[in-house]
Amino acid sequence: MRNWKLTLAYDGTDFSGWQIQPGQPTIQGALQSALERVTGEGPLPQGSGRTDAGVHALGQVASFLLEAPIPPDSLKRALNRTLPAAIRVLCAEEAPEGFHARHSAVAKTYEYRVFLEKTTGGETLCPPSLARYVYAYSWPLDLARLNEAARYFVGTRDFLSFAATDPDATVRAAPGAVADDELGPTPAIRTVYASGWEEQHLGEGTQLVYRVRGNGFLHHMVRNLVGTMLDVGRGYGEASAIPAILAARARAAAGPTAPARGLFLHSVEYAS
Amino acid sequence: MRNWKLTLAYDGTDFSGWQIQPGQPTIQGALQSALERVTGEGPLPQGSGRTDAGVHALGQVASFLLEAPIPPDSLKRALNRTLPAAIRVLCAEEAPEGFHARHSAVAKTYEYRVFLEKTTGGETLCPPSLARYVYAYSWPLDLARLNEAARYFVGTRDFLSFAATDPDATVRAAPGAVADDELGPTPAIRTVYASGWEEQHLGEGTQLVYRVRGNGFLHHMVRNLVGTMLDVGRGYGEASAIPAILAARARAAAGPTAPARGLFLHSVEYAS
Repeated sequence: MRNWKLTLAYDGTDFSGWQIQPGQPTIQGALQSALERVTGEGPLPQGSGRTDAGVHALGQVASFLLEAPIPPDSLKRALNRTLPAAIRVLCAEEAPEGFHARHSAVAKTYEYRVFLEKTTGGETLCPPSLARYVYAYSWPLDLARLNEAARYFVGTRDFLSFAATDPDATVRAAPGAVADDELGPTPAIRTVYASGWEEQHLGEGTQLVYRVRGNGFLHHMVRNLVGTMLDVGRGYGEASAIPAILAARARAAAGPTAPARGLFLHSVEYAS
Repeated sequence: MRNWKLTLAYDGTDFSGWQIQPGQPTIQGALQSALERVTGEGPLPQGSGRTDAGVHALGQVASFLLEAPIPPDSLKRALNRTLPAAIRVLCAEEAPEGFHARHSAVAKTYEYRVFLEKTTGGETLCPPSLARYVYAYSWPLDLARLNEAARYFVGTRDFLSFAATDPDATVRAAPGAVADDELGPTPAIRTVYASGWEEQHLGEGTQLVYRVRGNGFLHHMVRNLVGTMLDVGRGYGEASAIPAILAARARAAAGPTAPARGLFLHSVEYAS
């Protein structure tokens, strides 16, 4: 058996998330089907973490075992011929024994894109070329206030206030360092290494991009951080309230969940 | 009768260009149908110029006359409810008598996007979030060389070497200052006011964006300028050869036509 590592980009718009579910289009399901068609083997690829419905990836990582010896570039080309166009294998490589996309991960980076729309006529509008990939936001946002808020998340913190209130999530044990969607023994403590916003000027207009790198993220954590920061960015609440929001350890203390469509899993890092 | 001006954004991927054609999905056709459904009147909207199949717009302008008095924001909202999601009305406004989207235009800006892909395994790859909107280019490109080439196009020049060799285009008379797709009495002379490349760092990777502003563009001109500059940018030919390419007044002297999918009509300017 050989251990494989795939790096994947996908447009999550038309999928019910990463995790395989009967009768639903999922990334994991599409990848398993493609592997079966290409190799005759049907391993269930393990992702670095689940992404929710509508969330995109620029560098998701999946691992699995295959019996058949296949040159990496041949596997990559065959999978890209077989997968829907919305899912692309960017890299296929053999991985050391014991490599696991989730358990071996040491850090992840997410990106969240907010498009500053020019609202006219009270209507939410976004150019079609961005509509699937941004949260089109109609309040004016102050970049300095967003960054002031973003800095409060750097460090090792209990992020329970920013975790989805899934009824069963708190009782699942985290199997590894990067435990998206799951809460481990010290349930909501995660370390954020970097957290900041930048402005990008595109032909479509101005886009504000949040990038956050950490050792793991709770379910909905990035979207809840973003929803809370956007409130601050438009002047509804102050960044200085964030320590109290963290201390509350209650979802209700934080802001709304930003929409899935603006979120990209940017990359996953492994100890080399 | 009231004269109307619409500003439109569209994803041109699934359309056979701007111009209405029987049995084909076109932007002009979709807009005419939407106007008919919304107002009961079916004026043929006049665009600032045609865009080819697969070309996108961030600020195309269309004009037409309507009998019915409609508040601009109501017209905009009703059209956006009726049009396919790939076409959005960004602004609807009443225009002065005599305003015509094409004849009244004094300048246009186009943008062309090239994604610098990281080729591995000899395969052309582009993240799905960009695939419809960029030319994924697998040769390394030198930004300084691209800009050296771009500067040669600024000024009033005969761009015949960069015009599509449409059999009938050269005999059509240009009806106005901005005469996309058409060649007037001094057939191929156009003024380019600005022409340059910039590098954008996106989550997907690096994108090189060419922006060109001029008083008018020949059919395929921007895509032919780009194809020629990309050759220079990858070291196939020198920027200093461009004056000779212009002087040749022959399509064969210039480089290839870059694909439609990377091209955006960015904006159209009118004398105020």
